[in-house]
Amino acid sequence: MDSFLLNDIVKRALEEDLGYGDRTTEALFPAPLPATGFIVAKEDLVVAGNNLVQAVFQTLDPSIDFEEKCTSGGSVRKGARIAQVSGDARILLKGERTALNFLQRLSGIATLTRRFVDRIKGTSAQIVDTRKTTPGLRVCEKEAVHLGGGGNHRFHLGDLILIKDNHISLCGGVSQAIRAVRGTRSHSLKVEVEVNTLIELEEALQESVEIIMLDNMPIPEIKKAIRIIKDKAPATLVEVSGGVDLERVTEIARCGVDLISVGALTHSAPAVDISFDILPGSRLSGQESPVGRKVS
Amino acid sequence: MDSFLLNDIVKRALEEDLGYGDRTTEALFPAPLPATGFIVAKEDLVVAGNNLVQAVFQTLDPSIDFEEKCTSGGSVRKGARIAQVSGDARILLKGERTALNFLQRLSGIATLTRRFVDRIKGTSAQIVDTRKTTPGLRVCEKEAVHLGGGGNHRFHLGDLILIKDNHISLCGGVSQAIRAVRGTRSHSLKVEVEVNTLIELEEALQESVEIIMLDNMPIPEIKKAIRIIKDKAPATLVEVSGGVDLERVTEIARCGVDLISVGALTHSAPAVDISFDILPGSRLSGQESPVGRKVS
Amino acid sequence: MDSFLLNDIVKRALEEDLGYGDRTTEALFPAPLPATGFIVAKEDLVVAGNNLVQAVFQTLDPSIDFEEKCTSGGSVRKGARIAQVSGDARILLKGERTALNFLQRLSGIATLTRRFVDRIKGTSAQIVDTRKTTPGLRVCEKEAVHLGGGGNHRFHLGDLILIKDNHISLCGGVSQAIRAVRGTRSHSLKVEVEVNTLIELEEALQESVEIIMLDNMPIPEIKKAIRIIKDKAPATLVEVSGGVDLERVTEIARCGVDLISVGALTHSAPAVDISFDILPGSRLSGQESPVGRKVS
Amino acid sequence: MDSFLLNDIVKRALEEDLGYGDRTTEALFPAPLPATGFIVAKEDLVVAGNNLVQAVFQTLDPSIDFEEKCTSGGSVRKGARIAQVSGDARILLKGERTALNFLQRLSGIATLTRRFVDRIKGTSAQIVDTRKTTPGLRVCEKEAVHLGGGGNHRFHLGDLILIKDNHISLCGGVSQAIRAVRGTRSHSLKVEVEVNTLIELEEALQESVEIIMLDNMPIPEIKKAIRIIKDKAPATLVEVSGGVDLERVTEIARCGVDLISVGALTHSAPAVDISFDILPGSRLSGQESPVGRKVS
Amino acid sequence: MDSFLLNDIVKRALEEDLGYGDRTTEALFPAPLPATGFIVAKEDLVVAGNNLVQAVFQTLDPSIDFEEKCTSGGSVRKGARIAQVSGDARILLKGERTALNFLQRLSGIATLTRRFVDRIKGTSAQIVDTRKTTPGLRVCEKEAVHLGGGGNHRFHLGDLILIKDNHISLCGGVSQAIRAVRGTRSHSLKVEVEVNTLIELEEALQESVEIIMLDNMPIPEIKKAIRIIKDKAPATLVEVSGGVDLERVTEIARCGVDLISVGALTHSAPAVDISFDILPGSRLSGQESPVGRKVS
Amino acid sequence: MDSFLLNDIVKRALEEDLGYGDRTTEALFPAPLPATGFIVAKEDLVVAGNNLVQAVFQTLDPSIDFEEKCTSGGSVRKGARIAQVSGDARILLKGERTALNFLQRLSGIATLTRRFVDRIKGTSAQIVDTRKTTPGLRVCEKEAVHLGGGGNHRFHLGDLILIKDNHISLCGGVSQAIRAVRGTRSHSLKVEVEVNTLIELEEALQESVEIIMLDNMPIPEIKKAIRIIKDKAPATLVEVSGGVDLERVTEIARCGVDLISVGALTHSAPAVDISFDILPGSRLSGQESPVGRKVS
Repeated sequence: MDSFLLNDIVKRALEEDLGYGDRTTEALFPAPLPATGFIVAKEDLVVAGNNLVQAVFQTLDPSIDFEEKCTSGGSVRKGARIAQVSGDARILLKGERTALNFLQRLSGIATLTRRFVDRIKGTSAQIVDTRKTTPGLRVCEKEAVHLGGGGNHRFHLGDLILIKDNHISLCGGVSQAIRAVRGTRSHSLKVEVEVNTLIELEEALQESVEIIMLDNMPIPEIKKAIRIIKDKAPATLVEVSGGVDLERVTEIARCGVDLISVGALTHSAPAVDISFDILPGSRLSGQESPVGRKVS
Repeated sequence: MDSFLLNDIVKRALEEDLGYGDRTTEALFPAPLPATGFIVAKEDLVVAGNNLVQAVFQTLDPSIDFEEKCTSGGSVRKGARIAQVSGDARILLKGERTALNFLQRLSGIATLTRRFVDRIKGTSAQIVDTRKTTPGLRVCEKEAVHLGGGGNHRFHLGDLILIKDNHISLCGGVSQAIRAVRGTRSHSLKVEVEVNTLIELEEALQESVEIIMLDNMPIPEIKKAIRIIKDKAPATLVEVSGGVDLERVTEIARCGVDLISVGALTHSAPAVDISFDILPGSRLSGQESPVGRKVS
Repeated sequence: MDSFLLNDIVKRALEEDLGYGDRTTEALFPAPLPATGFIVAKEDLVVAGNNLVQAVFQTLDPSIDFEEKCTSGGSVRKGARIAQVSGDARILLKGERTALNFLQRLSGIATLTRRFVDRIKGTSAQIVDTRKTTPGLRVCEKEAVHLGGGGNHRFHLGDLILIKDNHISLCGGVSQAIRAVRGTRSHSLKVEVEVNTLIELEEALQESVEIIMLDNMPIPEIKKAIRIIKDKAPATLVEVSGGVDLERVTEIARCGVDLISVGALTHSAPAVDISFDILPGSRLSGQESPVGRKVS
Repeated sequence: MDSFLLNDIVKRALEEDLGYGDRTTEALFPAPLPATGFIVAKEDLVVAGNNLVQAVFQTLDPSIDFEEKCTSGGSVRKGARIAQVSGDARILLKGERTALNFLQRLSGIATLTRRFVDRIKGTSAQIVDTRKTTPGLRVCEKEAVHLGGGGNHRFHLGDLILIKDNHISLCGGVSQAIRAVRGTRSHSLKVEVEVNTLIELEEALQESVEIIMLDNMPIPEIKKAIRIIKDKAPATLVEVSGGVDLERVTEIARCGVDLISVGALTHSAPAVDISFDILPGSRLSGQESPVGRKVS
Repeated sequence: MDSFLLNDIVKRALEEDLGYGDRTTEALFPAPLPATGFIVAKEDLVVAGNNLVQAVFQTLDPSIDFEEKCTSGGSVRKGARIAQVSGDARILLKGERTALNFLQRLSGIATLTRRFVDRIKGTSAQIVDTRKTTPGLRVCEKEAVHLGGGGNHRFHLGDLILIKDNHISLCGGVSQAIRAVRGTRSHSLKVEVEVNTLIELEEALQESVEIIMLDNMPIPEIKKAIRIIKDKAPATLVEVSGGVDLERVTEIARCGVDLISVGALTHSAPAVDISFDILPGSRLSGQESPVGRKVS
Repeated sequence: MDSFLLNDIVKRALEEDLGYGDRTTEALFPAPLPATGFIVAKEDLVVAGNNLVQAVFQTLDPSIDFEEKCTSGGSVRKGARIAQVSGDARILLKGERTALNFLQRLSGIATLTRRFVDRIKGTSAQIVDTRKTTPGLRVCEKEAVHLGGGGNHRFHLGDLILIKDNHISLCGGVSQAIRAVRGTRSHSLKVEVEVNTLIELEEALQESVEIIMLDNMPIPEIKKAIRIIKDKAPATLVEVSGGVDLERVTEIARCGVDLISVGALTHSAPAVDISFDILPGSRLSGQESPVGRKVS
């Protein structure tokens, strides 16, 4: 994600929290106080969002020193240090909550994605996200999915033609809808169609589309659908969507689908637990790291 | 939440999704098509975010008709209609995902809050949120907590003096910290201090503060702490924080605490399942409602 | 183009022109004066931008009445009325220049596009635009190309993988570049590669891509290239780019290419001549229309 | 142009092109790659917009090194290097199109202005621009006119009182209009009036104005008008406007006018051809410059 | 002032005051309550800013009814009603302070301007403002000066060439400075020069400028200066600036100057006293008006 | 005040003054000219706003060197140097007016606050501000009050529950209002109630509130009120508001009140006189300082 895009997101977040000052920190520390903040994983997790953490502290004060201690997309164990931040303690205290809000949410998404990805290892399927993201944070959240090992589905309504159930019912059927887009479809965009039944699938296969989404189908029906597609239009990508969870995902992947889209990656990933511990002194070396205490 | 505050949030969300057009809808429907969209609960839930749903559709087209079918903060059953939206089908299709992204997230927060609140019925405790909110959506999320029956803790760093562990360790102790804020504290703000041990608690009680937060204490320690506080400073409010979940919350509430703060209300509430089904025709009456199909 | 997207563009344009007031109009007309403005084509042209004209006047005053007199994308003759605007003369005077700046530029793009499109009638080729647009107005300008009868190439760097000469030279060759994107390419995006020679073309055809762009090739080489592609990868779309003008475009189209991209559509289309004549009185009927005088 | 004013214009342009990432560059180059981009004139031109080119690349990455190779406003020959940019190849690739979009448009304006200016050398006339600029880019485009050797007419509706045909017809005549502004005119603003006939001119000369604009007059009428003005109000500046092109401009200038305003400078200047060629390696010296290949 | 320009100013002001809700009003009034607010002058004053008051309430709720009870620029007596606002009491309570902050400040400026203007009645001098305005509110404050009867000096650094003491000392003298701008001065801008002594004045008169500012001169020197100017360049406007107060202004005006600029109009005008009294019930008629109680 | 919050305020102010260029400076100085600007107090004053002065110049040009010559909140004598700024003279000339507009206004507020504070030395009262601030500058102005020695009352409608006269009259009485907020009041906010008579005071004391505001009471009534409060609710803070001026403030303070709120601190503080003198040469030492000439 290009860093100039982070500025507005970070500024809005800081204004929300700091627009009227940090009355506690201002009251306690009238003068600068060199300190170092340690960002520590409190559970096993996949890291995403360090670029936002850095932007938070350096928006507050460009002289803050930020050091990543593990790569974005890296898997870290409980207790591992994710990053450390050195500079005036007052800046660390002011940015702490906003930085963690980004980091815990985005790492939560990357961590949940990784769990799905791990469940389908060895198959040819790919886990992908949806447009069910937090309003205003889509690009960040899709980057977190990517860092977790997933692929990105549409970023917005303009980068793929995707005919869904509401389109179909308003158009009067799957073939009508596909034929309707044919004349107007942009040469640069693929076309995908969602089907809910094998009958709709047969209809779709009479037209030409690049991707077929099997929505909310039981496993046996998915298997039948794939056999039909491989037979009639083997170059078509097959996506499965709807009701995918960690329990069912392996079985779905083994059906031979290409893509499994999971809305929960972005709309329901729980935040992961990460602490931020501040010690006096700048640029402390590794061994002086504190036992990570919980920051609420 | 004052409605003029929603405009920017909604505009940003729509630009993110629609800034380059909805190539599917534009390709399928060259002309306006009167339609009605039904927003239906797919599980039991508490509604929050209808004001954002309305703002989404009316930002796209002020002539869209929006009708709430249940009150904000109301508990609805699976299958119940939450709202309905009438107007050009193309507007309904373009706003659908953004509207649901707000509604599912905020209703998720209200629903989780209600579950916590229900667990402590009959006690004198109140469930409150934290600053662990989605960057940029804090005011919306805190309203959802309120609709779920919870109270609101700090909105930002300027509306309460709250001395936390990092402040204390940098200041050299609980009493030093409290004494340091005394001279500078604003007459209009309360002071709260976080304590992690009974020793810190004793230190805090030697100074005067309006609220004491017991952080990450086991139940027996909480009980002891409350006995000490009732004894020495009975007017002080007592907050419990850290590691609170649905299993422990009842027991904590029964200790006699005033406030139980739960970060998970906003950082880890799963989205609730809500569908949006569009039928041709404007202003359909209730009986014609479709069997709620899943919208992915 | 969704109308909520126009607001910021229009507001910025009006602030640029009107931020310190219209000292002439304020000096001349202390009180409201009902009037009607007639927007008239001063040459044959294709209309684009009426949505911005409407937005300009209604941003200044929501009570202004705007009436389109010809469809967007319609071809009109010199002297034809494009639209008419009724309301306070002071608003008409204040919005005139900004409205015409949008309308003349966008209609200029639509008009030039139409001329290219007319030259390739009867072939299977399509005229498409490029990313060589005015910074800040891309979506408007691409809509003008569409209204002129052209197709839209990429809206931004995220909606197609397009490997160009600079990518190739940095990667060390056409095949290296195509192979490098293979692992990472998104399932939802097509891949296009630009080739400058038949040797590069042969390289490209050994890999699989959806679109091949022949850049700056002379006609005989284009013909050879198309024969090779039809032979080895007949499903591939062929785009011709570079140095396309109204003289050469017919011959290029007849070579059997699919797409002809023309940067000049947006970077060099001259503004078309359009006048705005204001008469006292509101809602004048058609016959009272003035002889279109020139507005400079 | 003050550089802080460029930030928003540049940011908007980059967001438009890069808001969802550059999927090609990200796919091809996972790691930084030192490179240098050469900006080369592909035709004779006058340079304008280097400040925006610099801002584009340094907004993406402040560590990018930008070196101007010719002065703004300087005339360069086909093949001459305009500027060079060193840093991570990925940044150069991402900023290339946006940078060129600014540079080609603004240099196009400066180049066309210079051609007009050259045609009137030796006369006392000055070429000036109009308010017919691209919405949102007026200050940049007026600076390009200045760099091309032209003068700037009004920047906005607040910096000169200019009574035009629509004002006059709504006021009931030239003298009525001039008299109407007299009482209210600001001491700090000049007054200009547009006249279309010698009769209107006589009317105007009975009042006092600083500038008279002769709109759309044939040459013999311009000559008569100037004789009348020199006779009755010799201190008045005379502007000619309307239908000025490279063919007519010399003859108009020789009539003895002071100002010739040309809308086409900003509304119809074709973009000039400029290439951007990227070679691996940072800070290459001049002799290693590539033969400028075309960048589409 | 064009009303679309007010939106951002008003929105920012409301966000500042209401961004986290009005906890008092929300706590007291859970349901809408029809009410009318009366805006009443608590001292004699000149009204300015009613357009902002209207924008404040209608930004909060477009259904609010706003009724002006006296014209902008009108002089009202203590006790007179300035405007009245009807609608939900909660909206009135939320907008009250922001509306009054605008109205009291701008009416304060208009009132002070009127006092200066009244002191120079019968002379040919005009009171004008300066650029010493509140950052972000210049256009509003200059409108208030205009409503008070004053004229407007420069709106910004681009609408007049004004050579001041710092320019002169850096240039090496008055004549050097005037000659330096001659070549580059825009045809559309006047030139003014500030002189501090009669020697500088003589220097200035050897060049040609439209306005001369006599800065910080004692009365006898102003008189001498005017005699010299009338003698040598009678068409030149004469401005007096520096240390002008209500005591000295009449005498200065009687010297025969054209313009007297007073920074205090905008940088030091005290707010006037205005109350906002809310009564239950909508659209109360005049006689039911409450005795204006003070709103702090 | 966190410096990232200043950027937008400063950018808006500079755009207002410089958006179309500084035609004088551009005309006079085509090339950079090293210079130093001295900011000098022209009267005794308390300094506030140096952070904005620095931001103004460094927004224009980050290489400008800014040196504070006295501490914020410090009292300086007429003639004392407040700060000095070195760099290109053209930047100093362009930023001068905007910088002084901030500095003179905010130092005016700090200076007036200090005068009030000095008048109540030796009492236990504190001078506090109100929400009667300049729209858009509240946080800056409240910091200036703080630097002058005052305390800050509410920053916005969300950080204290304050029941005022309009609330009370709409609710039907003081006790009704206090009881109405009781159920809903947030645990983190204090409650204040405004009373206008001793009867209202008695009503208020029957409920429990943290702060009581005595509005517009004569001194003898204030004294009675304080006796009653000390008697019945000695922990309650007492605020006096309304009609407080430098003459009355000492007597009010001696009554034993805790807080005296003064709207005039922010709505009517006159700007203090400060000059900005520019000399050629960078980084001049102290002795070379010019005799502070007036900058208008």
